[in-house]
Amino acid sequence: MRNRIVILIWFMVGGSQGLALQAQANLRGGVWPPLFQQTVNHWKGEVQGLMEEGILVPTPKDMAGGYSHEVHKRNFFLLPKAAALYQLTGEEKYAAYVKEVFFAYAKAYPGWGKHPSTRSYARGKIFWQCLNDANWLVYMSQAYAGIYDMLSAKERETLETQLFRPCADYLSLENPRFFNRIHNHSTWGNAAVGMIALVMQDDVLLNRALYGLEGQPTFGEATDNDGGRINIPGQNKAGFLAQLDHAFSPDGYYTEGPYYQRYAMSPFIMFAQVLHQQRPELGIFAYRDSLLKKAVFALLQQTDGAGAFFPINDAQKGMSYLSRELIQAVDVVYALCGKDARLLSVAEDQGRVLLDKTGYTVAEDLAAGEAKPFHKWSQIFTDGANGDEGALAILRPRNPAFPITAVFKYAAQGMGHGHFDRLSYALYEGSTEALQDYGSARWVNIDQKGGGGYLKENKTWAKQSLAHNTLILDQTSHFQGKTQKGSEWAGEPYFSDLSRPDAQVVSAKETHAYPGVTMQRTLCLLEDSVLDEPILLDVFRVAGETAHPLDLPFHFQTQLLAANFEYKTFSSPLVLGSSHGYQHVWKEAAASLEEGPLRMTWFSDLKFFELTTHMEAGDSALLCRVGAADPEFNLRRDAFLLLRKPAVKDALIVSAVRAHGNYSPVSEIPRRPYPPKLTVQTLHSDAAYSVVSLSIAEGPTWIMGISNQDSSAEQRHSVDWQGKTFTWQGPFFLSKI
Amino acid sequence: MRNRIVILIWFMVGGSQGLALQAQANLRGGVWPPLFQQTVNHWKGEVQGLMEEGILVPTPKDMAGGYSHEVHKRNFFLLPKAAALYQLTGEEKYAAYVKEVFFAYAKAYPGWGKHPSTRSYARGKIFWQCLNDANWLVYMSQAYAGIYDMLSAKERETLETQLFRPCADYLSLENPRFFNRIHNHSTWGNAAVGMIALVMQDDVLLNRALYGLEGQPTFGEATDNDGGRINIPGQNKAGFLAQLDHAFSPDGYYTEGPYYQRYAMSPFIMFAQVLHQQRPELGIFAYRDSLLKKAVFALLQQTDGAGAFFPINDAQKGMSYLSRELIQAVDVVYALCGKDARLLSVAEDQGRVLLDKTGYTVAEDLAAGEAKPFHKWSQIFTDGANGDEGALAILRPRNPAFPITAVFKYAAQGMGHGHFDRLSYALYEGSTEALQDYGSARWVNIDQKGGGGYLKENKTWAKQSLAHNTLILDQTSHFQGKTQKGSEWAGEPYFSDLSRPDAQVVSAKETHAYPGVTMQRTLCLLEDSVLDEPILLDVFRVAGETAHPLDLPFHFQTQLLAANFEYKTFSSPLVLGSSHGYQHVWKEAAASLEEGPLRMTWFSDLKFFELTTHMEAGDSALLCRVGAADPEFNLRRDAFLLLRKPAVKDALIVSAVRAHGNYSPVSEIPRRPYPPKLTVQTLHSDAAYSVVSLSIAEGPTWIMGISNQDSSAEQRHSVDWQGKTFTWQGPFFLSKI
Repeated sequence: MRNRIVILIWFMVGGSQGLALQAQANLRGGVWPPLFQQTVNHWKGEVQGLMEEGILVPTPKDMAGGYSHEVHKRNFFLLPKAAALYQLTGEEKYAAYVKEVFFAYAKAYPGWGKHPSTRSYARGKIFWQCLNDANWLVYMSQAYAGIYDMLSAKERETLETQLFRPCADYLSLENPRFFNRIHNHSTWGNAAVGMIALVMQDDVLLNRALYGLEGQPTFGEATDNDGGRINIPGQNKAGFLAQLDHAFSPDGYYTEGPYYQRYAMSPFIMFAQVLHQQRPELGIFAYRDSLLKKAVFALLQQTDGAGAFFPINDAQKGMSYLSRELIQAVDVVYALCGKDARLLSVAEDQGRVLLDKTGYTVAEDLAAGEAKPFHKWSQIFTDGANGDEGALAILRPRNPAFPITAVFKYAAQGMGHGHFDRLSYALYEGSTEALQDYGSARWVNIDQKGGGGYLKENKTWAKQSLAHNTLILDQTSHFQGKTQKGSEWAGEPYFSDLSRPDAQVVSAKETHAYPGVTMQRTLCLLEDSVLDEPILLDVFRVAGETAHPLDLPFHFQTQLLAANFEYKTFSSPLVLGSSHGYQHVWKEAAASLEEGPLRMTWFSDLKFFELTTHMEAGDSALLCRVGAADPEFNLRRDAFLLLRKPAVKDALIVSAVRAHGNYSPVSEIPRRPYPPKLTVQTLHSDAAYSVVSLSIAEGPTWIMGISNQDSSAEQRHSVDWQGKTFTWQGPFFLSKI
Repeated sequence: MRNRIVILIWFMVGGSQGLALQAQANLRGGVWPPLFQQTVNHWKGEVQGLMEEGILVPTPKDMAGGYSHEVHKRNFFLLPKAAALYQLTGEEKYAAYVKEVFFAYAKAYPGWGKHPSTRSYARGKIFWQCLNDANWLVYMSQAYAGIYDMLSAKERETLETQLFRPCADYLSLENPRFFNRIHNHSTWGNAAVGMIALVMQDDVLLNRALYGLEGQPTFGEATDNDGGRINIPGQNKAGFLAQLDHAFSPDGYYTEGPYYQRYAMSPFIMFAQVLHQQRPELGIFAYRDSLLKKAVFALLQQTDGAGAFFPINDAQKGMSYLSRELIQAVDVVYALCGKDARLLSVAEDQGRVLLDKTGYTVAEDLAAGEAKPFHKWSQIFTDGANGDEGALAILRPRNPAFPITAVFKYAAQGMGHGHFDRLSYALYEGSTEALQDYGSARWVNIDQKGGGGYLKENKTWAKQSLAHNTLILDQTSHFQGKTQKGSEWAGEPYFSDLSRPDAQVVSAKETHAYPGVTMQRTLCLLEDSVLDEPILLDVFRVAGETAHPLDLPFHFQTQLLAANFEYKTFSSPLVLGSSHGYQHVWKEAAASLEEGPLRMTWFSDLKFFELTTHMEAGDSALLCRVGAADPEFNLRRDAFLLLRKPAVKDALIVSAVRAHGNYSPVSEIPRRPYPPKLTVQTLHSDAAYSVVSLSIAEGPTWIMGISNQDSSAEQRHSVDWQGKTFTWQGPFFLSKI
């Protein structure tokens, strides 16, 4: 039994790993690796603060933010730390405190009914929803394992019969809709039941956690309190392993995007960490071709130069791999999945480790200088449990001196948190947003703004297509802005080639966002040795059965420096439209365009960025700003350029975007403010082929040809142009002349 | 002679200081102090690049940015570094290169007439204006001293008769308007002539540099090419010492503000550095009560938490004490003015030192761990050569845990670069602008924006009173926005008390900005132990002979979080007015106010800020945004609150501003989002007295009484209020009830 618990928490007093580590530290002059020591010091302070407040186990009453909620939450976060400190230091006061709190819960829990709030479809007993009760039991399992050894058999029996088993049963048997659901909240339920099962050595409970409740009916059309379906179509499995089958794509992508994936990962990582030790025969980290490791790397890849997650779908900007959940994921995956030394660099940035053996391992290896740089690379993450629901492509130059990154989205809808932004991309230069995705309209937990929840402008602006860098027809969002419609279809990968040294190309289609209309976007990150910086070539083709007016926004967000088109500002700005986000936009200036190259330079974070595109006579350019119909100042006053075409049946819009130099307000010297001019042009465009050129002044001209209907690798194509013939094999060609 | 030169540059090969330092380094294992070694490495690279391009001495032809200008500029920056490297390394190639460039100049210079551009009132020969020729000679003097020892007497004679003396005479005898002027450009002329005089041991030239040209006429009403007067009224001295008398106030303040002071300091520091050694009897660093040291400390004090200068008057934000000029000033003042160990902390931030003995000293002492923290403190900097032209007051809490800083301006106009912002203040929290001064409308050297020069919006917006946190009458800027009027009068210090532990108080008046109107503002930075953060209490009194509508802006700049007044946004924003900056402002929302407390919370850099003020029925609040009448997008779309009172003869506006907590997008936890509410009130207001209260919910109430007409320390005052009598002695009282 001792061995079981040792393994569970990874430390043990009395001749076990805790002391072993202490002995190891003594060899190093009595100190732990610096990062681990800092972590110990930090938690000592937090736990001391808790202990000084005494034993607080209030009767459940409040919602999130309220007293009883916050007290129980603090208990479950800090009790495992107290238990770990007991094991690490041998100081009994920590264990005694944990034990006393446990007994206070064991005394009160049997008397608690369901939480008084009826808002949840699955009410908890300690909190208003089962999700939080499951959080509680996950962490309490860790704390229980940590002090298990110092409890008598009778004490354990009391705790298990009065508290832990009833809680596990409540979350499973008494709440089958919650427990048997395929949903990230339910993963917490599975993990909670499984983790307490492992401490209590209860295989019945463990099987329930891994494989779900047996013989449960399906729940038909039943929904939760947010309107989500309880059953997913065709669901025939439940439990933790089924969650693993459904939650992530084979590439580790999570359909809601990295902001939510960060949170959803936690129960997977925590339960897997103990399963790995207790049930090695399950091979949990090898499951689905090492899915959990892939999911963690997918999260790390979906970050900008400062480690902040790309704000895909509903996401508050600024959330990053410095978060608690990623510290956990990085430490566990480092220690248990092959010690990838690149993860140590991330851990170093994080500046904190877990208070367990994985954290110790990370801190020790960091102190030994084993970290390797984490250079991110280009990668395509398929979406959907089977990887067949579109994808998110990330393009990064091979030369790490250039931190430019394009994030191209042709994934599935992303459920209720999804945005209507098929074929959109955001562009980063390090941590600078060159072309932004607006993110969500929400200040999480900032009560002054709608209580910290989603603001109504999240739906009316942030989710709409206009808030993204993608094409809009008829001033109407993709799928008319309806989540259910968007969920029926995913974006369609068309072709990609990340293998060339000079360019990386990804092409995708969207054929359902507008009935009868095919949209196809091809992004090419060019990286030629004659170029001073990479250039993103962007070829957007649209073809419909009838004519539609087109709008293509570029969300440059910040300071317009220069434009080669003659715009006129309005003496008072006009509202752009009445719905689909247009009601939130002011036109500050407008330009009627002649045929030819349009160029615009902007300035963000003291860096220069430039868009070059080719426009036709009759097109127009609008300089827009977010902020209309915003009665509570919930929106940022960000700028964007809107390229507009009158109603056309089809069009090919070719653009090039680049970052080119920066400025220091201390030296007052701009670096590379005028790089050689770019010109883009359409050489050929019809249903079968698109051929475009990108010319660099006093440099080469690149030609890219795309087969629009056949992406097979074998097919040969040819296009005539001004007496020349371009011939190629496969979906595209790209060459320099 | 050798000794003279040794001292001039501080290094010498052959048994002198250069080798002495090298020997010292050898004792340390052959290495220089790290920061000095980095500096040497940096300049080796730069100088190598120059040498590889060969000898470039083109015929003068271009303006700034053009070829000949930039080549000569690079020469004068890098040649002294080459000479220093010769002395430090003993490698002759450096000296040989400098010598060769010198002889190329000596051959060409006598044949050059005035520069072809006629734009300057004082045309140079090498550059379009004497200023740049003087820059050239200052640096070439350093380079000449550095290789003096390896030149033959004949070579020296050639250089001096063909190049250096003619250049010095040109800048002085042939350009008396330039040389005898009291102006920061002319200081370069004085320094140039003086520094070459010291190398050539020419006391006639040296006296000319120190005391100006003798027997020169005054230049009456003559002006330079920017419209500035050549003579200042009552000028009867010229030369370097006269510049020192006039350029700075006795506290080291420079009337144009720190952005320009940074540039103006250079010739003072460079010439003083060599005078200190060559003419110790002058006691240059002791001159005017150690004025140069005071001026450098004044610059360092006028910075935010990141070392960026407060953008007083025309100033581009972001310029900081990391600049070349401040590295120079800090190293020289550290080494030659008493080794104030706090300067080492600044040098550490700067990360670079001078390539001379002062830089070596700084690097050595830093490596020895002698740095002390540079905690900034509250200070009042008088303006004007005699310190009688108003002042700039900086208020900082005594507790350095609170980085809040108020910058209160009641100085002189600041000449042509001055803004119309009497009694304005800007508020900082570290490097966050809580209430901003807009700064200048200019992107220095960014050609895309008006060639990098001042934009027309600098005059029409940035200089106007509305662009600052101060009171505006009749929608008209102070002094009607006329520099000449503003220059006739400075702000008036009324009283100040920086001695109390619980509060620091500064009060100033402005009686000329509007005829017949007295404005008085009193700022009090309260720092009570019961308060969780300091509070800035702001009491603005205005009294006129006739009624005027009043506008008081608060430039919060960023994201409005919450307001306790009911505002209505406009479906399309309206322009606020037609002149004095009002034409550049959109009203986004408006509120009619009832009597009572107005509260507004905003969010900048993830920190919370709050304004509390007391308004009367009939007042209004406008939520405004900069950006109207901006046909080229030259203005930032910053937000501000405008408090508006209908026409009144007098008013007392009491406000309190505080920073209170912050938010992490990683933990998503707001810290201290709702501090105890503040309430401010006027208890008494008439011509003689203002008495106001500041109440903290569940905390104390502070009462401040101000004697409006008599600021003597002896006078006793009393005011009756609701049956109580407040009595006090001196200009104000402040007490807690």
